[in-house]
Amino acid sequence: MDGKRKTILFKLFGSSVSFMRRCLFSVLSVGPVPNHLAFILDGNRRYAKKWNLGEGMGYRAGFLSLMSLMKYCYELGVKYVSIYAFSIDNFRRRPEEVQYVMDLMLEKIEGMLKEESLVNQYGVRVYFIGNLKLLHEPVRLAAEKAMKATSNNNNSILLICVAYTSTDEIVHAAQQSCEDKWAAIQSSVNIKDSQDGEEKDTNDVIKLSDIESHMYMRVAPDPDILVRTSGETRLSNFLLWQTSNSLLYSPKALWPEIGLRHLVWAVLNFQRAHPYLEKRRKQP
Amino acid sequence: MDGKRKTILFKLFGSSVSFMRRCLFSVLSVGPVPNHLAFILDGNRRYAKKWNLGEGMGYRAGFLSLMSLMKYCYELGVKYVSIYAFSIDNFRRRPEEVQYVMDLMLEKIEGMLKEESLVNQYGVRVYFIGNLKLLHEPVRLAAEKAMKATSNNNNSILLICVAYTSTDEIVHAAQQSCEDKWAAIQSSVNIKDSQDGEEKDTNDVIKLSDIESHMYMRVAPDPDILVRTSGETRLSNFLLWQTSNSLLYSPKALWPEIGLRHLVWAVLNFQRAHPYLEKRRKQP
Repeated sequence: MDGKRKTILFKLFGSSVSFMRRCLFSVLSVGPVPNHLAFILDGNRRYAKKWNLGEGMGYRAGFLSLMSLMKYCYELGVKYVSIYAFSIDNFRRRPEEVQYVMDLMLEKIEGMLKEESLVNQYGVRVYFIGNLKLLHEPVRLAAEKAMKATSNNNNSILLICVAYTSTDEIVHAAQQSCEDKWAAIQSSVNIKDSQDGEEKDTNDVIKLSDIESHMYMRVAPDPDILVRTSGETRLSNFLLWQTSNSLLYSPKALWPEIGLRHLVWAVLNFQRAHPYLEKRRKQP
Repeated sequence: MDGKRKTILFKLFGSSVSFMRRCLFSVLSVGPVPNHLAFILDGNRRYAKKWNLGEGMGYRAGFLSLMSLMKYCYELGVKYVSIYAFSIDNFRRRPEEVQYVMDLMLEKIEGMLKEESLVNQYGVRVYFIGNLKLLHEPVRLAAEKAMKATSNNNNSILLICVAYTSTDEIVHAAQQSCEDKWAAIQSSVNIKDSQDGEEKDTNDVIKLSDIESHMYMRVAPDPDILVRTSGETRLSNFLLWQTSNSLLYSPKALWPEIGLRHLVWAVLNFQRAHPYLEKRRKQP
């Protein structure tokens, strides 16, 4: 009986917190709501050290924070959420740590496919962004499966950057653009053949739009806000190309400590800067 | 007599300020000194508005701040200083404003070539970085002359980014890399000719090092600190490729208000983060 009362009280408390959050979001939504939020998940290992936990527990705590934050974003109406889950440089960490992260990733991707997962609850389409060939085989297969399984969801988009660096993305886009141009020229040479081949076509030169159309991140608009936790202000090779006009926000909190207040503060800052950003977009 | 005394007092005051600054720099130099500082000169127009000056006066005040700051940097032993003087996007501003900035630039570049200029006083080599073809003709010629005239200076390097955006720089580097590969393949095809041409050479693919070797900024190491004034935290398409591991610092001051205290604070922050950055560089 006492246990039942406790459960009821707990549920009531949960509902009222959720209700208050929704009220807060309604107020926030009067102003412009960012379309795309990007996060660098920094500080998991420092969090584990700070609380004397195993290193792995830092990542698990970080994952819980990510889930809450994603929920808030979707409730607020943010359409795109990008996260920097694993950089190409991270593969140079200790092998057992890399293995731990890969195992955790596999576990969480598989969890994502379950009926009751956040992804299905909110109708989220998932993209894995980066050089996926570098991932451990089971993780890559699970990632591809998850992308396929969620491809009909269209409420929100989650972009998980794994085996990603911005410079790798740009070099890859340049390679692809170059190959495309090459193929186009070869085929036009075959057609013209004995015609005047000296004529230099402006279409032969790689353009900004070629590079952009081959970016891994082409499926999303540029982020409005980039959040990097732990008070660090470096971009660490994350979305360099896409964040030149994004608001950068670096709360002191380690990633597992991030919460609703940080999200609200970031959105308020975005709303304050919004008229200026809009004006700049129209007439720079 | 009274005038003479005033002059002496003024000189004495100037010398003692300069002496104190040098003492401060000696203390700072006990820690690691940044090798490359980059600045986004933001807030000249807002400064003019704030003090009810003509728009042009904002740029002139900004130029004076730049001169002081460069002097401090060279006194402190910073080898490279980069400034974002004019973006490609800025060409879309009102024609009379663009003309004003071009005229001012021409005047200042010509001043730079004089014997008593800061550039000659500190032995500074000047590079103009960007798509210089977009500059007004007299400015481009003056820029080329200044680069040539200072090419034997090697105490410090000043990189002035004009008609620059980072995406333009990257696209340009991709184009050049593609053309180089192409030329190399064509010549190897001519040599091999009837040999087995199907074999795919790994040298045919654009690599990170190809892109980097064609960047306009290849003449300098990556910046240690990027300062953007006016409290803005966006990078506005400036050195996106090069600042992924730079400390970002956004003082609230408008560009013409920037002073010694901001430089000292930026360097102190850099010194605090230095052990972490070094560790990260060795074992990411």
